[in-house]
Order: sequence, then structure tokens, then C-alpha cells
Amino acid sequence: MFTIDSFRKLKRGPQVVLFKDASFVSCFSGLQSGDVVVDVGSGSGFLASYLGFIVSPGGKVYTFERREEFARIARQNFEKLGLQNVVSLIEGDAVRRKWPECDLVTIDAGGGDVLLKKAFNALKPGGVAVGFLPNVEQLKVFQEKGVKLGFKPFKSTEVFDRNWLVREQGCRPENTGLIHSVFLCFLRK
Amino acid sequence: MFTIDSFRKLKRGPQVVLFKDASFVSCFSGLQSGDVVVDVGSGSGFLASYLGFIVSPGGKVYTFERREEFARIARQNFEKLGLQNVVSLIEGDAVRRKWPECDLVTIDAGGGDVLLKKAFNALKPGGVAVGFLPNVEQLKVFQEKGVKLGFKPFKSTEVFDRNWLVREQGCRPENTGLIHSVFLCFLRK
Amino acid sequence: MFTIDSFRKLKRGPQVVLFKDASFVSCFSGLQSGDVVVDVGSGSGFLASYLGFIVSPGGKVYTFERREEFARIARQNFEKLGLQNVVSLIEGDAVRRKWPECDLVTIDAGGGDVLLKKAFNALKPGGVAVGFLPNVEQLKVFQEKGVKLGFKPFKSTEVFDRNWLVREQGCRPENTGLIHSVFLCFLRK
Amino acid sequence: MFTIDSFRKLKRGPQVVLFKDASFVSCFSGLQSGDVVVDVGSGSGFLASYLGFIVSPGGKVYTFERREEFARIARQNFEKLGLQNVVSLIEGDAVRRKWPECDLVTIDAGGGDVLLKKAFNALKPGGVAVGFLPNVEQLKVFQEKGVKLGFKPFKSTEVFDRNWLVREQGCRPENTGLIHSVFLCFLRK
Repeated sequence: MFTIDSFRKLKRGPQVVLFKDASFVSCFSGLQSGDVVVDVGSGSGFLASYLGFIVSPGGKVYTFERREEFARIARQNFEKLGLQNVVSLIEGDAVRRKWPECDLVTIDAGGGDVLLKKAFNALKPGGVAVGFLPNVEQLKVFQEKGVKLGFKPFKSTEVFDRNWLVREQGCRPENTGLIHSVFLCFLRK
Repeated sequence: MFTIDSFRKLKRGPQVVLFKDASFVSCFSGLQSGDVVVDVGSGSGFLASYLGFIVSPGGKVYTFERREEFARIARQNFEKLGLQNVVSLIEGDAVRRKWPECDLVTIDAGGGDVLLKKAFNALKPGGVAVGFLPNVEQLKVFQEKGVKLGFKPFKSTEVFDRNWLVREQGCRPENTGLIHSVFLCFLRK
Repeated sequence: MFTIDSFRKLKRGPQVVLFKDASFVSCFSGLQSGDVVVDVGSGSGFLASYLGFIVSPGGKVYTFERREEFARIARQNFEKLGLQNVVSLIEGDAVRRKWPECDLVTIDAGGGDVLLKKAFNALKPGGVAVGFLPNVEQLKVFQEKGVKLGFKPFKSTEVFDRNWLVREQGCRPENTGLIHSVFLCFLRK
Repeated sequence: MFTIDSFRKLKRGPQVVLFKDASFVSCFSGLQSGDVVVDVGSGSGFLASYLGFIVSPGGKVYTFERREEFARIARQNFEKLGLQNVVSLIEGDAVRRKWPECDLVTIDAGGGDVLLKKAFNALKPGGVAVGFLPNVEQLKVFQEKGVKLGFKPFKSTEVFDRNWLVREQGCRPENTGLIHSVFLCFLRK
């Protein structure tokens, strides 16, 4: 077991992917040990790290990051979590690089047009591409482009993690919190 | 990768644990390959199966089921998914059996009193017990009993998987669906 | 007081507006006794009836319905509720009719383009137009058109009415139910 | 029409009742012009004010507040909204005062035991008592006590007002916000 707590100590540059969303990505794509993931847009490396724990041992996560400062943060985080042999950070534009054959592609980055085509080509048959889309319009475009490329969309969702205060004096949901992070769109090759 | 679709073909006896909840259990407990799980209340075996995919290879899920007809359904499902070497079904009352040392205990069964004590004793330090509680009162009792035994509660939540229809003519959430399954309560030893 | 129960006995033709949505329309537009409402798309007359109770006495609801069979159902419902002097049903196309000066316009109908212009012209300064929009795209178009006409959008929302089972043996939300009806868009002149 | 905006300029002492909840109270109790309301726990007077607009003209809201500083704030707010002839503030303990015959009782106060009995006696047949309950345990006790007194519970709910950002560049729900205020419990005499 790894611990969610260990992620709390990590550095945060850009907005991090939340566990509520990462857990759905792993589950509904059917990820498991030995799988290969291509992750576009490392950010602080939270998603790549979580997926890294799931594909270990024997699997691999290749994560692309264009911005140098994010890449540095992400790399430090992979090391802190002991994932440096599972997660490979590739600095630079994912569009221009060669992608390995893979089981899952996660795209948390703007301009997904060319990315989806590269994803389709890199994925094994039955493999899954997941988009992280803040707006509904992006969700729609992501799915439409996917369908044109030959993907089969099988799930579009938003995930709520509604935490409760369980106390002697009374139980209730927390008063304020996160209402929206992203829409998730799952496409199968 | 395994596929969520393969679960669709499984037999269903009692109410099955949903992927939305199973994914949170796996993620927030920090489950990964090689871990050992004790699952109390197999039901149709959906949760044990999902966790079985996550702990493979090298890990193990021991799942207890008292009712013969559920045990038969669950066993068939483990075989259909090719998990017979990962998931061990133990017919009978979990309270009376010896439990292996484990990383995660999942309890989807009534009368959790003695179960939580057995869970505490079986778990490795840092291990996690997760309760599936339909009602708020059960959530409260589960956490209170856990605290008395020495567990540290770190998350109580309800998970929503709000599916969207993404269509040329317009995007919107599905009109009707599941509003509530269970509350999840996470305790750490 | 009127009773929500009295609506249960009404005839239902098309999809009815729900109380959860009608209550928000009344509240966030600031409707009260004496106000005048133009309601486009009577349907079964549920929204017009609820608003009729709020504007009584002294107020008036003019409700347009193009389809003869819906108009008949709505008219019967207004009579059953004793609202025949408060709610006036106008059979025919709202686009081609003259509208009275009003405080609130509610639009639960397709093709809102010309309707919004008529709404703007009929509304008193400070008056409110509310759109019932099933899809996000419609929500966006409604607001954009409104802004072009000079409306000030002040609220776009979706309303959840999450009912609970409160029982001796335990409290929990209902298991299944409505997840989505419409998005509401509020524009002020 | 009154405007929601006018409430923005009011003074706020204690936690105010939200429009999302006030609108449900008005709608599901069937409140309308001419009705009489007893409101226990004025707080800053937001609920009494909203209900005051609904029962005008001809109706009346009697609102009890024990704490002097809240009573002063509430009174100022009623005056700012021009409701001084509709809403009567009664300083002191609602338990010890005589209540007028009424159509609706709203209880946003601790120790509802004696209050519910007084509510039952003051309500006309068919009248409604609504509790504002932060915790599930309070919701349960409120309903149970109501049933013992002869009330018929007809709705327990939590209301979500999920606001959306509708923008040229993309539509999405607001990222953070209110997740929980209170549970509402509706009892009919």
C-alpha cells in the first residue's frame, strides 16, 4: 500500500488532478499492474503518480510536460514517492514526440486535436483515452473528435466526493467545498 | 487492462458494489499490486473482483460469504473473470474464522461489531478498514466503534458518478439514475 | 395556503415543470402578489398554476400554448385549482400575439429567439426573464441572446431536490430519482 | 416584485437562511398571500422577510428572537425592506409566548421539543411545520417528535443550488461553493 497522505507532502505547481478523478480514470479504464500509460500534461505529477502505483510492478507511465518549471516539480514528486523507475518524465511537446504503445492515454492539456490522433495510434486495441475537460464545450469536442478518429465513447461523467463530518454531536456533509473540477470523457479504441 | 464490460456479463445475486464506490475504496486506501485484502460479505463478488485486479500479481483477496447461494454466484464470477487464483472465497461466518494478516479490510455486512475488532487485529500497521454503510446511523456507529478500537478515521464520504449525455443536439446530465448507494467510512490502523 | 397535493390530481400531458424549479423561478425573480407574468409554453399548466398562486390576489398569469391538446389539459387544470380568474390561457403562437406589460416572463419552449425580444419589450424595467433549458448549449444561447438584447444575466443554475428517507431503522437519501430536469437562466431587464 | 439584490444590502448577524431553502419552504408548504406564519429564530430576519413578501398583502409573519443583538439586526432589516407592517418581531422566548393561529411554522432553533407542540396547537388543520436541521440526527428527532404529536411528515430534503458559469469561452459549474446548509423537514397537521 502507498498512502494518500504521502501526496500531501508533495510540491504543487499547477492545479493538481484530484484523487476522486484519478480513481475513476484507473477504475473505468480497467488499469492494472503491468500496463503502460501515456499521460499528457504532467502538471505537478499527481495523476502520473497515482497511475504509477497502479501499474507497478512491471508497468510504466510516460508523462509529457512542456513547461520547465512544472517538469521540475513533477520530477521531484516522482522521486519523493519512489516512483522514478515507474514514471518517466519527458520534457517537451507531446505532439512532436514518439509515443510508446500503451493501454491508457490521459489528456489533461489544451489543444487535444493532434493529441487524440496520436493517442489512437499509440493505443493497443481495446485501450482507453481519457480526457480531463473543465468545460462542457471541451467535453463535446473531445468526444466528437474521438468518434471521428474511430474511438467508441463509453462514459462521460463528473465525479463528486462529498465528505461528511461524523461527530458525536451530529453528522452532516461538510458545509463548503469543491463543486466542480473537470468532466471526464472515456473513449475506447 | 481488464474491462468494466466484463463485469456486465457476471451474475448478480444481491445488490452489487458499484465501481464508483470500489474505485474510491482502492484509491483512498492506497491499494496496489501485492497487497492482501480481507473482504467481508462477498455478495456477487464485484468488489472482491475489482480489488483482485488491483492486487494482481502477487496479492490476494480473501472474501467471506455466509450464504450459500451468494457464495456460488461469487465463485462463478471469479472464474469468469479469471481471478480464481487471486480471490479466495471462504464460505462461512467471517467472525468465526481466522483472518490472514492484511493491508485492507472491506466490510459490507451487518453487525460489524466483532468484525471491526478482527479487522484491527488482522491489519498491518497503517492498514485500512473501509465500511459500506447504507444509513447515516450505521456510518456513525462504524466510525465510533473504530475509534474505540484504536483506528484513526480519515475519510467519510458519499460518491456521485453523474453521467452525461454528450450529443450533437446537446449535452446534459442523464435525467434519472442512482442518487445514493452507501456511505464509505475509511479507518486507518 | 394551497397544497402541493392538489397538483398530484392534475392531468399531465407533456413533461411538467417541477416544484423544485418553479420555486426557484418565483424566489429568485422576486415574484409576489399583484405581479403580472407571461408564461410561454403552458404544457400541462403546472408552472403557470404555481406562479398563479404567488401573484394572487391582484396579479395575473398569461400563458401561451400552441398545441390544442396541451391547451385543453392546462385549462382543465387551472379550473381544478380554482385559478381560472388568475391564469389566462391563450391558445396560439406567443410570437404572433401581443404581450401585456409584465414583471416576469418564463420561457419553456424551443426557438426562443424572437421570444426573448418580445420578452424584453414586454417587461417592466427590472423585470426578469427565465429560461428553462434542458441542454447546456441552449443555456448558453439563451444567455448570449439575452445579453445582446440588453438583459443582464444574474443567475444560471441547476436545482437538486434530494429527498431523504427518515426512518426508525436508519436515515439515508432515496436510492434513485431525478438527477436532471433543466438548467434555469435568469436575465434582468 | 421585490429583488433578491435588496437582501444583499442587509445586515448579517448569525448565519442567514438561504434563498434556496426559503424558496422550498414557501413552495412545498403552499404559502401564499394572506397566510399567517410563525417563525421561530429570526436570526438576521432573512427567512421572515422572504416569507413576508409572499404573504403580502393581507398576511402576517410573527418572528421570535431571544437574543437582543439579533433582534436589533432583524428589525433593521425588516425596515430596510419596507416590511415593518407585515413582519412582527417578538423579542423573547417563543416557548413562553402565546402564538397566533397560523398556516405555517418555521423552526430554525435548537430545543424544538416544546416548540413543535406549540406549533401543532397554533396551526390550522392542513397547516405545515418546517424544521431547519443542520445534522441528520436532528432531522430524525424532529420528524419523530412531529409524528408523536400527530403531524404527518411529507418531505425531508436537502436543496442544492448549483450555479453555472456561462461564458463565451466555455460553460461549467462554479468550482467551489456551498455543499450543505440544512436538511428541511416538512410536517403537515
